[in-house]
Amino acid sequence: MLEELKKRVYEANMLLPKYGLVTFTWGNVSEIDRETGYFAIKPSGVDYEKLRPEDMVIVDLDGKVVEGHYNPSSDTPTHVELYKAFSNIGGIVHTHSPWATSWAQAGRGIPCYGTTHADYLYGTVPCVRNLTKEELKAYEVNTGVLIAEAFQTNDYEAMPAVLCKNHGPFTWGKDGLEAVHNAVVLEEVAKMGARCEMINPKVGPAPQELMDKHYYRKHGENAYYGQ
Amino acid sequence: MLEELKKRVYEANMLLPKYGLVTFTWGNVSEIDRETGYFAIKPSGVDYEKLRPEDMVIVDLDGKVVEGHYNPSSDTPTHVELYKAFSNIGGIVHTHSPWATSWAQAGRGIPCYGTTHADYLYGTVPCVRNLTKEELKAYEVNTGVLIAEAFQTNDYEAMPAVLCKNHGPFTWGKDGLEAVHNAVVLEEVAKMGARCEMINPKVGPAPQELMDKHYYRKHGENAYYGQ
Amino acid sequence: MLEELKKRVYEANMLLPKYGLVTFTWGNVSEIDRETGYFAIKPSGVDYEKLRPEDMVIVDLDGKVVEGHYNPSSDTPTHVELYKAFSNIGGIVHTHSPWATSWAQAGRGIPCYGTTHADYLYGTVPCVRNLTKEELKAYEVNTGVLIAEAFQTNDYEAMPAVLCKNHGPFTWGKDGLEAVHNAVVLEEVAKMGARCEMINPKVGPAPQELMDKHYYRKHGENAYYGQ
Amino acid sequence: MLEELKKRVYEANMLLPKYGLVTFTWGNVSEIDRETGYFAIKPSGVDYEKLRPEDMVIVDLDGKVVEGHYNPSSDTPTHVELYKAFSNIGGIVHTHSPWATSWAQAGRGIPCYGTTHADYLYGTVPCVRNLTKEELKAYEVNTGVLIAEAFQTNDYEAMPAVLCKNHGPFTWGKDGLEAVHNAVVLEEVAKMGARCEMINPKVGPAPQELMDKHYYRKHGENAYYGQ
Repeated sequence: MLEELKKRVYEANMLLPKYGLVTFTWGNVSEIDRETGYFAIKPSGVDYEKLRPEDMVIVDLDGKVVEGHYNPSSDTPTHVELYKAFSNIGGIVHTHSPWATSWAQAGRGIPCYGTTHADYLYGTVPCVRNLTKEELKAYEVNTGVLIAEAFQTNDYEAMPAVLCKNHGPFTWGKDGLEAVHNAVVLEEVAKMGARCEMINPKVGPAPQELMDKHYYRKHGENAYYGQ
Repeated sequence: MLEELKKRVYEANMLLPKYGLVTFTWGNVSEIDRETGYFAIKPSGVDYEKLRPEDMVIVDLDGKVVEGHYNPSSDTPTHVELYKAFSNIGGIVHTHSPWATSWAQAGRGIPCYGTTHADYLYGTVPCVRNLTKEELKAYEVNTGVLIAEAFQTNDYEAMPAVLCKNHGPFTWGKDGLEAVHNAVVLEEVAKMGARCEMINPKVGPAPQELMDKHYYRKHGENAYYGQ
Repeated sequence: MLEELKKRVYEANMLLPKYGLVTFTWGNVSEIDRETGYFAIKPSGVDYEKLRPEDMVIVDLDGKVVEGHYNPSSDTPTHVELYKAFSNIGGIVHTHSPWATSWAQAGRGIPCYGTTHADYLYGTVPCVRNLTKEELKAYEVNTGVLIAEAFQTNDYEAMPAVLCKNHGPFTWGKDGLEAVHNAVVLEEVAKMGARCEMINPKVGPAPQELMDKHYYRKHGENAYYGQ
Repeated sequence: MLEELKKRVYEANMLLPKYGLVTFTWGNVSEIDRETGYFAIKPSGVDYEKLRPEDMVIVDLDGKVVEGHYNPSSDTPTHVELYKAFSNIGGIVHTHSPWATSWAQAGRGIPCYGTTHADYLYGTVPCVRNLTKEELKAYEVNTGVLIAEAFQTNDYEAMPAVLCKNHGPFTWGKDGLEAVHNAVVLEEVAKMGARCEMINPKVGPAPQELMDKHYYRKHGENAYYGQ
């Protein structure tokens, strides 16, 4: 079972360079097996070009390494917190993808300017505040705690993405592949949102009814997109 | 005959990722056989990497599936309305191509800033308004109806492209290939128009006589471009 | 000899898609043999993917086709005028490359903001005015005439590039390859110039002495760049 | 030993086109052997497509060619000055990479807007002033002298990058590979910094404590990133 999980997480990780979301080692994907509470994650600082399925590290929800010959991603404690807080998710992605990171650096959430956004992300993608000096002492844990707090008033299933101020994005989904899919969507939406504001500096968000129409065309019991 | 049509539509669809106009499944091409009134269109939500000619779906002008093992694109009713309204067109493309979509999100038509635009698109590319809440109930049908209305005062043959506010572009042409060609032109023109405004925020449209010269160099009885 | 010229011009043309300077057929390269006064040029509207060396068209300085089974580029009369006006050039390129065309659409010359520009282009890349209605009657000829006029006060060897307002760039050089090289330089310089103004809207041109230093590092009798 | 050095420097040079940092011959990498004081550097103006390991030129710290059948990069005197001033570095890169060069042309240092920057570059990337007319007489030497001066108040190990006004970037590292790595980081940071200001024109630098956290996560005795 763990071999299958490692293979899946390896393949999801390899999609990050394929979709242009990472430079060097600046990203990671994990996926959890909810029965055992174990998740597989990319090892820290290992080049994508050299990565192999057997290099994935197995970690439990206390953040302890269960199996693996490498250190897990330094962001592992953030993944732990998110898996604990968001009980229905199965995969998490972190990247420094250029457009989403530019919004994070700008300290702004991404308004919903159109249907590409509304198809997958319901409302404004939130941008969480900086950690305090005190919170920075447990940086990776508190990054996860802060994101979880931000979703007390957001539905993490309808908004599977967040920006961390001056840092970059996290996305999630029902498994690693869906989390990667959402990371690609976020980057595309971040790009088009920035250009849209350049073309019309006074632009406002798309009408609520259009956002509803598109979101529920793809999600929920009345969805009719796809096969 | 239907096999030939499916093959042509498959090939036209595969040009969308080739020209960088689609991410994931965010686009579709159809082409109609005017004698039977049947058109072939991409199935809904099927990955381009897995698409095969036999997956194309045959639909009639009532929007009913004539042949196919998949659901047709969720945008099929829009294609139906456009084929009914624009009697001389043979192919339609819808994408979320990033630059054209950025203009659509910005709610602005694309002014004609130069000859690249004038060579294929006569005048400002129109951006149609949002649908009302009432109209959204039949979203895809009314998207087509709204576009058709906008072309009561535009020549759909001289302007084979439109933007739908907060959504994205549709283009058309005498067949699927020409519709894809116009989708590429539109994306290029959208990119250069946005950059042109960045370089000179006070820029105005190209002179009418230059637009005429270039458009009629490629179209109509006095055309002299090409072989 | 003509076969050799056709082959050279074919190869120079194929560099345009390689360097991302053309979409579809929006560009052409020619090269002249000054002894015979014949030049070879891309045929009009023929896809780069299908182009072959034998498709190049041989034209004389009256604009008459000497040899070839295709029509020459519709821009041929512009090439003729430039070869007649600029006696030391051997190759000419026209493209709609996106950044240079964005400046042309904006109606602005490109200031020299740095050494990348100064290494090849001495001073501001000029942007020539629109043709009048009267001049548009002989559009392609007068485009060449207008460019030639603009270089009465510019040194065409030190500034082997020009923008035509609302249209796009022409570049030239001692042969087709050098003209393509200058087209790539122009596109790069156009891109960096636009971004530089975005980063610092109050930026001014590079100091004259730095421009001189870099230009003469690569050109003239005291050049010391290269082998 | 020199053969090994040439091979390493050749491979580091070939990463420049791989990472999209150079057009034509606009860049060079060198690496020094501190025991002999010899360094290998790319030959001047030789195409990357034709470059071979044996084409690298061996130069000493007086700037004299020790071995090689080509002229060394025209920037060689700048490399000499930097190797003399920064005793702990082993490799240097110069490019005209588009985003970093756009900041250099704009005459602005790059503020630290986020953790991608802070992970490798501690603080604002400095932009050094233009050389005076007098200094331009020994252009390449004085470029190095000026950079060295700027680092009297900067730690060249914590800030392995600099912009030269109206010119472009230099980066360095413990060897050629690390210098290339820093050149890629700089380009990415320059791109995201410019876009970040476009998204939020009033953005300020990231908090000092976050910069410290990220920099020391990867550097110094308490580093815990990687294997």
